[in-house]
Amino acid sequence: MNQLVEKGLLHGADYNPEQWLKYPEVLAQDIELMKQAGCNVMSIGIFSWAMLEPQEGCYEFDWLDDVIQRLHTNGISVILATPSGARPVWLAQKYTEVLRVSETRQHALYGGRHNHCYTSPVYRDKIMQLNKRLSERYAHHPAVVLWHISNEYGGECHCSLCQAEFRSWLQEKYGSLDQLNEQWWTTFWSHTYSDWSQIESPSPQGESATHGLNVDWKRFVTDRTIDFLEHEVRAVRSYHPELPVTANFMYYYDGLNYFKFKDVIDIVSWDNYPTWHKGSDLDIAIDTAMFHDMMRSIKNKPFLLMESSPSSTNWQSVSKLKKPGMHILSSMQAIAHGSDSVQYFQWRKSRGSSEKFHGSVVSHDGGSQTRVFQEVAKLGEMMKQLPDVAGSQTKSEVAIIYDWENKWAIEDSQGPRNIGMGYKEAVQSHYRSFHQQGIAVDFVDMECDFAGYKLVVAPMIYMLRGDIERKLQAFVHQGGTLVLTYWSGIVNENDLCHLGPVPHQLTDVVGIISEEIDGLYDQEHNNGKVVMAFGNGKLQGEYRCSMLCDLVQLNGAKVLMEYTENFYAGKPVLTQHSLGSGEAYYIATQFEQSFYDDFYGELIDRMDLHRVVDVAIPNGVLIDSRTSENAEFLFIQNYSANEQSISALGEEWHAVTREVVLHEEFKIEPYEVLTVKRPVG
Amino acid sequence: MNQLVEKGLLHGADYNPEQWLKYPEVLAQDIELMKQAGCNVMSIGIFSWAMLEPQEGCYEFDWLDDVIQRLHTNGISVILATPSGARPVWLAQKYTEVLRVSETRQHALYGGRHNHCYTSPVYRDKIMQLNKRLSERYAHHPAVVLWHISNEYGGECHCSLCQAEFRSWLQEKYGSLDQLNEQWWTTFWSHTYSDWSQIESPSPQGESATHGLNVDWKRFVTDRTIDFLEHEVRAVRSYHPELPVTANFMYYYDGLNYFKFKDVIDIVSWDNYPTWHKGSDLDIAIDTAMFHDMMRSIKNKPFLLMESSPSSTNWQSVSKLKKPGMHILSSMQAIAHGSDSVQYFQWRKSRGSSEKFHGSVVSHDGGSQTRVFQEVAKLGEMMKQLPDVAGSQTKSEVAIIYDWENKWAIEDSQGPRNIGMGYKEAVQSHYRSFHQQGIAVDFVDMECDFAGYKLVVAPMIYMLRGDIERKLQAFVHQGGTLVLTYWSGIVNENDLCHLGPVPHQLTDVVGIISEEIDGLYDQEHNNGKVVMAFGNGKLQGEYRCSMLCDLVQLNGAKVLMEYTENFYAGKPVLTQHSLGSGEAYYIATQFEQSFYDDFYGELIDRMDLHRVVDVAIPNGVLIDSRTSENAEFLFIQNYSANEQSISALGEEWHAVTREVVLHEEFKIEPYEVLTVKRPVG
Amino acid sequence: MNQLVEKGLLHGADYNPEQWLKYPEVLAQDIELMKQAGCNVMSIGIFSWAMLEPQEGCYEFDWLDDVIQRLHTNGISVILATPSGARPVWLAQKYTEVLRVSETRQHALYGGRHNHCYTSPVYRDKIMQLNKRLSERYAHHPAVVLWHISNEYGGECHCSLCQAEFRSWLQEKYGSLDQLNEQWWTTFWSHTYSDWSQIESPSPQGESATHGLNVDWKRFVTDRTIDFLEHEVRAVRSYHPELPVTANFMYYYDGLNYFKFKDVIDIVSWDNYPTWHKGSDLDIAIDTAMFHDMMRSIKNKPFLLMESSPSSTNWQSVSKLKKPGMHILSSMQAIAHGSDSVQYFQWRKSRGSSEKFHGSVVSHDGGSQTRVFQEVAKLGEMMKQLPDVAGSQTKSEVAIIYDWENKWAIEDSQGPRNIGMGYKEAVQSHYRSFHQQGIAVDFVDMECDFAGYKLVVAPMIYMLRGDIERKLQAFVHQGGTLVLTYWSGIVNENDLCHLGPVPHQLTDVVGIISEEIDGLYDQEHNNGKVVMAFGNGKLQGEYRCSMLCDLVQLNGAKVLMEYTENFYAGKPVLTQHSLGSGEAYYIATQFEQSFYDDFYGELIDRMDLHRVVDVAIPNGVLIDSRTSENAEFLFIQNYSANEQSISALGEEWHAVTREVVLHEEFKIEPYEVLTVKRPVG
Repeated sequence: MNQLVEKGLLHGADYNPEQWLKYPEVLAQDIELMKQAGCNVMSIGIFSWAMLEPQEGCYEFDWLDDVIQRLHTNGISVILATPSGARPVWLAQKYTEVLRVSETRQHALYGGRHNHCYTSPVYRDKIMQLNKRLSERYAHHPAVVLWHISNEYGGECHCSLCQAEFRSWLQEKYGSLDQLNEQWWTTFWSHTYSDWSQIESPSPQGESATHGLNVDWKRFVTDRTIDFLEHEVRAVRSYHPELPVTANFMYYYDGLNYFKFKDVIDIVSWDNYPTWHKGSDLDIAIDTAMFHDMMRSIKNKPFLLMESSPSSTNWQSVSKLKKPGMHILSSMQAIAHGSDSVQYFQWRKSRGSSEKFHGSVVSHDGGSQTRVFQEVAKLGEMMKQLPDVAGSQTKSEVAIIYDWENKWAIEDSQGPRNIGMGYKEAVQSHYRSFHQQGIAVDFVDMECDFAGYKLVVAPMIYMLRGDIERKLQAFVHQGGTLVLTYWSGIVNENDLCHLGPVPHQLTDVVGIISEEIDGLYDQEHNNGKVVMAFGNGKLQGEYRCSMLCDLVQLNGAKVLMEYTENFYAGKPVLTQHSLGSGEAYYIATQFEQSFYDDFYGELIDRMDLHRVVDVAIPNGVLIDSRTSENAEFLFIQNYSANEQSISALGEEWHAVTREVVLHEEFKIEPYEVLTVKRPVG
Repeated sequence: MNQLVEKGLLHGADYNPEQWLKYPEVLAQDIELMKQAGCNVMSIGIFSWAMLEPQEGCYEFDWLDDVIQRLHTNGISVILATPSGARPVWLAQKYTEVLRVSETRQHALYGGRHNHCYTSPVYRDKIMQLNKRLSERYAHHPAVVLWHISNEYGGECHCSLCQAEFRSWLQEKYGSLDQLNEQWWTTFWSHTYSDWSQIESPSPQGESATHGLNVDWKRFVTDRTIDFLEHEVRAVRSYHPELPVTANFMYYYDGLNYFKFKDVIDIVSWDNYPTWHKGSDLDIAIDTAMFHDMMRSIKNKPFLLMESSPSSTNWQSVSKLKKPGMHILSSMQAIAHGSDSVQYFQWRKSRGSSEKFHGSVVSHDGGSQTRVFQEVAKLGEMMKQLPDVAGSQTKSEVAIIYDWENKWAIEDSQGPRNIGMGYKEAVQSHYRSFHQQGIAVDFVDMECDFAGYKLVVAPMIYMLRGDIERKLQAFVHQGGTLVLTYWSGIVNENDLCHLGPVPHQLTDVVGIISEEIDGLYDQEHNNGKVVMAFGNGKLQGEYRCSMLCDLVQLNGAKVLMEYTENFYAGKPVLTQHSLGSGEAYYIATQFEQSFYDDFYGELIDRMDLHRVVDVAIPNGVLIDSRTSENAEFLFIQNYSANEQSISALGEEWHAVTREVVLHEEFKIEPYEVLTVKRPVG
Repeated sequence: MNQLVEKGLLHGADYNPEQWLKYPEVLAQDIELMKQAGCNVMSIGIFSWAMLEPQEGCYEFDWLDDVIQRLHTNGISVILATPSGARPVWLAQKYTEVLRVSETRQHALYGGRHNHCYTSPVYRDKIMQLNKRLSERYAHHPAVVLWHISNEYGGECHCSLCQAEFRSWLQEKYGSLDQLNEQWWTTFWSHTYSDWSQIESPSPQGESATHGLNVDWKRFVTDRTIDFLEHEVRAVRSYHPELPVTANFMYYYDGLNYFKFKDVIDIVSWDNYPTWHKGSDLDIAIDTAMFHDMMRSIKNKPFLLMESSPSSTNWQSVSKLKKPGMHILSSMQAIAHGSDSVQYFQWRKSRGSSEKFHGSVVSHDGGSQTRVFQEVAKLGEMMKQLPDVAGSQTKSEVAIIYDWENKWAIEDSQGPRNIGMGYKEAVQSHYRSFHQQGIAVDFVDMECDFAGYKLVVAPMIYMLRGDIERKLQAFVHQGGTLVLTYWSGIVNENDLCHLGPVPHQLTDVVGIISEEIDGLYDQEHNNGKVVMAFGNGKLQGEYRCSMLCDLVQLNGAKVLMEYTENFYAGKPVLTQHSLGSGEAYYIATQFEQSFYDDFYGELIDRMDLHRVVDVAIPNGVLIDSRTSENAEFLFIQNYSANEQSISALGEEWHAVTREVVLHEEFKIEPYEVLTVKRPVG
């Protein structure tokens, strides 16, 4: 990353010159416009396989030599992609094994992208050949700063090659069929396997409800994808082992456990396409913020925003224009949360095919006078004012557990609410209260270490894995504060129910035992009423709850709140329990947002957690902090359509991106982001 | 049944000890908990094939010997299942023919249950071998009181073996292709068959709208399933022809005509999973009551409640907890309508796989202190107080026609309302009025005899079969009262339209001719207005109607009500006609519920039909009666969330299940059931 | 057509006597009833293949001889169909290639209709053999007046034979793969084709988002269907080349570009099944009117209404009865818009299979006393009073562009609104204003000539083809008035985006340049406010707009209206531009209906366009005009449920279909149609 950090913040786009080789005037104009837009990097080669190897074994690099050289000559760096995101037609036609088999066991025809078997030896060989040549030819080119491995890995293949790999994976995991049968509880419905060859991946026309099989298949898909990624990485490292690699991730993509990628890539990057102006922009900002924080947390260091649209997308239900200011605000949000770049899909709109109307810096008319181009250029200017933000860090005292495998298991569990358990939404309820109150948050999964945190929030940790029970016990004993919720501690890592009291191994930590859980229809609700004062008095009165109501019995905890309705009115719904030097709270239901705001409002005071600013943060405004060796930066973001006032900051602060006096009350415009700075160290 | 009746009411569950053979402490604990719960029967072996025959031809019965002996030793009887509900993996792997082919002609992979071809000779042979061994080994065991043949038969197979059987079935039915072509009216769209081999089962990518083919295929599926059931029954009867057999049915399951099973099984049983607390509990109670009554009517004798959940299920959209009292109330409802048992799925929750969160008597924590266990045990106590209810009868003067084949034909008819004809709902409108007014009802299909009834209600008898026209004519001539409705008498048993006036052969019985029928969108309605007094004056003013409006011309009937809206305002909507010693009413539309309440309120008085009590029944309360040789029992059930008052009953009544004075006004708690008794004979 | 016109207006039905050959009394009764109903034509043979060729090569025509002769003897003409709309079972069984392959590459089983490959040589040979024999035997029969080629052509086949034809079609179109790759922009996602054999038709499991491929496939399907139609036509013309042919079209059917059929058939005909009484009858009448006008426009001469239901259909969600009067009104609407016939599907209801409840003249009871039969007979009488309407013309000064290929491209474009671009609805907004104000409209597609019109309305001409840019430029230069809208001039005929300003080649014509387009969610809206007076002052104040908001910059045009909301408040939304002797208007958004009414209200006055009557037309009433050599006819139609008043017409008018004084204010009943006439020439 160091080489990258030296360049300051990166500003650029996916660039597809191979589409325009017959239009030399377009290629020349591109360079001029890139300079006008303040771009210093381009991602290239993402879908270039058919141009690089137009026939099997015949490679053509001249055009790419020219593109890289022209960018370099003009001071623009290159993020070079491996082209495995889409294969040429000739490859699919000659070697049909490279095309995926779906879960319904249907062999794909050629088309689209992400449509190749990660196991296929032919596919692996072809990409190895090409990647090695790319490495040989370009890894040491002074323009090339990063490998962009494939593009948005995703999907799965159920071909016979993958089935065989899956069986091997299971043999390695379980050792014996006996152990697999026990963990998957196959005596249910008489499904005992008597030979490894009997195991098939889940399918709607075959096995689809053996939970252990389902979750293992999803794990296998992640592992298989990483195995393919490692195969690609080995190839590009043939000639320059030090050049860093990234793989671009997708917004809460369910198909891959992104935490598993942390040791294989050098830099995390992701592609961000929020639906601005669809409903509340603040809601969307918080949802995006949470994923930015997750991306930063995976390697606990700055990441890259690899793709975003400078205007609208072309695949959302409605393609809304970004209102003036929103492009800069949303781009700076990424930087505020730890990105060292703002990059776009795409530099120039394609003339044809499925993404021809996707937002881009340059449109079909080729001009720089458009509103979109002007905002991009203005952002480019702004980013140049902030070179020392690159590489700066975010410090968090709070960790929230978000665990992909737990999410898979919850959604597959066939339990209290088959119309939606709301795992992600539940996690976000907690996150939102911290973020709006100016508290930085890290995300961890169950395999992570919590040692450095003061507070760990564990919403719905249904599946216990990664020795999480012991880690949480130790964390509380040693003085940490834990918040645990309903639907926790139910199954082991293979989705097999724990016998004995729930939450498994944690009943002594939280001081309650969960007995039953009531599912509520969408139109139903209950309330929690505060029955014991708990701190500064923010939490008072009644709060509406819905979705799921856990009925618990006390095991040492104090009751802070009780249900008010249904036959369980009067039963505990919020409890507090001290253990060792720490304490643990148990929230037995899904509350409305104001509960989390008030509850964490109390807890933040009680624990004296660090806020990014001392002053009140108006509703609609979000503030993030990053700290470099010499300075702390605050990114003050107004997601509301109204001007907002911020109370005076200390004298040490000064504004970077526009002139404003900060040591008296100051204003921030609708959709404005203001970057301020103070010296540290 | 006699042997069963001697045991009194049965209380038990599906018990799957094969899942816990590695947990001897669990197996031991099970017996203790069964005794605490007041259980006297367990259904076992339902999904045990893989344990009984772990490899082809290698049988292992030792574990089952132990289970049965342990139950027996502890006074618990056994209902022993044949394990054909799910086949072992080795069987599917070696003989893929046993896996079903779907209507889209897709061969299933191994998985799930109910996934075997009923025709496959291999499958038939394998289950024959195993069932015979079960019969040999256990049929004479003193604990074993009933065979539970397979589990929830259902589904269909379109493999080539089944296609061949279907063609044979058609040859037998029609004799010649000419006759088949005529009845299916294949000249339409030029579909004339010229060879039997051309006939294929219905398929979305083939023939799907030849109504005669569709209805014959559904009949064939029922016949094929019964043929397989008979195959299984022959096997289990090898060593003890007298041990009774049952097959467990499913709530209004559309795929099988359950009336056709009446001669093959000794006892009807079914699995009941209402969605209590989703909307109105009274509505749900009536829906459940109707199916209980249908189950009792099939063999016109007590049935068994084979499965139910002591708490929630895990497959409904939301898994709601049963409120206190509801478990006992809903269990006793089954008994009130003729069940001699209350049984659960399942005794103990599985640790893994798809039903691991389905309700059970014993949960993963293994305790008896749960609310669920306590209610089960309390019900066990209550049932012990009612031994002479077992075997007692229900007497009905009213029969309602509910006919599976008619329902299939209506739903496939492509006629006046393709968004739903509402057959079941229409039948239930009639049923509800009787049940809420304390009138016992039997259900019949068109093949049944109506001789013993005073009143026959025939809603929407679109398809005439089983010589129903002649039977209804005779019934009225001989003094019976008939209620007929719109969309009746349209087609013959092969879904071929009758030529001539509608309702076919019944225009002289009801005294009207149906000319046209208007479909109404869901938001539309019309009204019927009373124009002629008819009895006690309950029926007066206007009643809203919807769905379908039949336009009739009079053929001798008197007009009691007329439409008020649309161009057919003033045309008859309720008529009365006398014929022989009987009379017939024709209802030309689907009315709101109050119409049926008032109309049947009049008819009950006019015909002096027997009510279970003389006093008024409050809304929310339902009362059923059963009569043994020595006593009549009333089951007074309160489905409302409020206390209800019942006027004084006669001095001969006394309460059984709790102390209460009945000869003055008395109260019944929310969700309470009160069983009272008087001597008879 | 002359021979047909001599018969006056045609009144008849699809007649399927082959279903009733075993019922001679039915066949005899048919003739009597046809006479009573005033029918003078029957369409026969549509689904008769299995009766005409019951075994391969064995033909049976005797029954058809009898049917035709009996009709002829009774003065009823015959429209004779080729039976390719459904093939016999023996044909599908012996030659499975004739069954279609779906886009998911699934081979169909036998069933339904429209289920045959248009490429299959066997199928083509079999129908050629049969059609030739029909031609030989019947083309000169005096009863036979028209060939009805196949029935409702539609659907597509993806078999290997069709794939090969598609590749040939592409080779012919593009000449080289280079050109195809360029036009389809296949470098996107690395999809460059290196061999023709690599091209496959679109498929959900293969390529589905290469827009150029998609639109070419749809064109190929139209061309393939026409090629098959020509094959059939060649066969029937073997023995009588002059007998005219028609093919019956379907309401806005998306799968075929009907304008392409104009040179292959002699007469356009179509099948019309409106959902009367579902919502507003006026809305439905306008929707139907527009398609009638489109059918008339294809060959710019009278068409035939080939099918309609005399009562309800059996395939709509709800089958509503037609209110009294509606049958005559809706039938006369067809004539008002240029039909020379009213024909029904079907004469007599089938006894069985999927359409047994479809509306018909004669129902299962076989009677003539039904309401339906009586209305049909009354219409028959009315049509006999109007013999000189047959062959009369409609004169239009206004043309609206409706282009099938443009619609395909818009709907496939993956752009500003993926939940619906509303092309058809947008076109109808313009049409409705003209029709309600008594202005006759023709429809054209982009290949047509606009020379004779005063006003051309071009809504959403996204895809420019047929040299439309040049034609519109010339049209305006030469004095025409053009109305253009948002989302115009974006792509070329292969869906490849034009580079440079939008609308391509038309920015100088309309005097604006489109910069960005904002998609609105369904619940969102904006407004346009009039800022400059434009004529008579009808257009004033604000009008709501929705769906899409185009942001334009002026290029010479004057601003008539501006947006009032969002960040583009104040930008132009309606502009006017003069060019040569003509002028051009640009509408930048989708307005509510009142805008179009007021805008065109002004334009009609400004341009002095011809109205069918001088008097005001009440809301709910529509009036159409047809003119023969000697007379002009007005068809005054009341689609409201209320009586309406029309101001006095001139003395030259007199009523034809009932007595009424027209030169003073007169009344028209609910659902009445009144035909009036004046001499001309």
